[in-house]
Amino acid sequence: MSFADRAAGYLERVEQALDARLPAEGTRPATLHAAMRYSVLGGGKRVRPLLCYAAGETLGVAADRLDDAACAVECVHAFSLVHDDLPAMDDDALRRGKPSTHKAFGVATAILAGDALHTRAFEILAGDGVHAAAERLGMIAILASATGSLGMTGGQAVDLESEGRQLAVDDLEALDRDKTGRLIRAAVLMPCCAVPGLPGATRDALDRFAANMGLAFQIKDDVLDVEGDQALTGKTQGADAVRGKATYPSLMGLDHARQRADALYADALAALEPFGGAAEPLRWLARYIVHRDR
Amino acid sequence: MSFADRAAGYLERVEQALDARLPAEGTRPATLHAAMRYSVLGGGKRVRPLLCYAAGETLGVAADRLDDAACAVECVHAFSLVHDDLPAMDDDALRRGKPSTHKAFGVATAILAGDALHTRAFEILAGDGVHAAAERLGMIAILASATGSLGMTGGQAVDLESEGRQLAVDDLEALDRDKTGRLIRAAVLMPCCAVPGLPGATRDALDRFAANMGLAFQIKDDVLDVEGDQALTGKTQGADAVRGKATYPSLMGLDHARQRADALYADALAALEPFGGAAEPLRWLARYIVHRDR
Repeated sequence: MSFADRAAGYLERVEQALDARLPAEGTRPATLHAAMRYSVLGGGKRVRPLLCYAAGETLGVAADRLDDAACAVECVHAFSLVHDDLPAMDDDALRRGKPSTHKAFGVATAILAGDALHTRAFEILAGDGVHAAAERLGMIAILASATGSLGMTGGQAVDLESEGRQLAVDDLEALDRDKTGRLIRAAVLMPCCAVPGLPGATRDALDRFAANMGLAFQIKDDVLDVEGDQALTGKTQGADAVRGKATYPSLMGLDHARQRADALYADALAALEPFGGAAEPLRWLARYIVHRDR
Repeated sequence: MSFADRAAGYLERVEQALDARLPAEGTRPATLHAAMRYSVLGGGKRVRPLLCYAAGETLGVAADRLDDAACAVECVHAFSLVHDDLPAMDDDALRRGKPSTHKAFGVATAILAGDALHTRAFEILAGDGVHAAAERLGMIAILASATGSLGMTGGQAVDLESEGRQLAVDDLEALDRDKTGRLIRAAVLMPCCAVPGLPGATRDALDRFAANMGLAFQIKDDVLDVEGDQALTGKTQGADAVRGKATYPSLMGLDHARQRADALYADALAALEPFGGAAEPLRWLARYIVHRDR
């Protein structure tokens, strides 16, 4: 059985794990909790949780030891989408095929729901007493570093500053390595904390895989913004162009953007060579990331 | 020497500790980092860090073991002020005697600076390898629980929902116990994690002290909004009334609000009785909180 057959099971698993780790429906403060659940559940490709479980398979870490890491990284991702969609930021009305959170709940509640999901990510990682404290602390450090001003949030800040300006491809890659890449890398690196004594070279190889795939993922996102089907992506089609955002297709053309994604994909696969068959789950996901239509 | 004589030293200490734990000036992304530093440094009463150090003195935990906790709770406090001041939230133009962060840097950067400070709080607690992992994990759990949807952020959500509505005093107290009280309690409870085997009763007594002072602090804030001097408070005078916000003075009159704060202060002091002279730092801070003019 390949990872393709197990992916559906993992998707169901992460949906249940997220549901269990979010405030229950109807609990107070009810509007805030509804907005948190709306922002996370019932949509999303769950690429980061899947990467987390796939890295776990490659490293021999059981899925039930990675539910918290998978949910934490997805909560950070969801919080960033809620805040990025705000009128003062990317001003996007559509997300995961539904009205974005501020459209459904208002701007104030969206800001607070994002904040609460952000906190929840770290609370999830801190809260479980099952695993060794040092292991969880390592995961928290990785996720925080990936999320903060030198990671995802810093990348989004540079992205906003760059709107309407001419960017070089290198600059765009640098900001996307932070904005998108750091969280993808965190998803793959957190499982490493669950393997005591893991060789540095093993961790570095997984990091190289993830760094390449993080950028390939963003390039594919930009390509889908041009040629994708809004019914599948669940996002406003052509939004980047409307905002005058530098994207890979706008800077290098669609064909070259696709070629760049393919080259990153190839380098990601090369990084997995030392793992042999154990890395099949990560290979499957990498193929999905560059070939997806949503 | 009483805590009054040491307070100035602690204020200097926390200022330096915060400075060292924030991204250095001029580092990239420069605007985001400038906004983070602007939102935290050079202002603020530092009540939460002082409570952290004072609780440390009472428990016999040295200050250098609490710098991270003190800075983390202040980073969360600063992030909440930045987000609460946003146009979609309380829409406040003045904070700590300066333009609020979104007035100085724009709304998008303010949202991201708040997010990055939020992350930084947990990164600070996770990052130091000096202390036992379980200790730090305990502090992270306390801070996250105080910050999230059942703590500060939840309180702010209820506060926003309540604007323009008639509230009972009990409802207002309940929301303020979350919005303001939870972070005050976290400041006092985090040092407890640094004392292995601390009796539950000791922790509970400190928690009772902090819960009472958290509410007294908010009542005093509301009183200062009516009768305070804007030059001292650094906040827009009368902003609560303009927004039609329920406050203690508006619900029960100024005199009764002051009496309620005094009663909470008395109960806070009663909670400290078992500590004898060791609790002098917390008593001094409690007196400051109810008698301050800013």
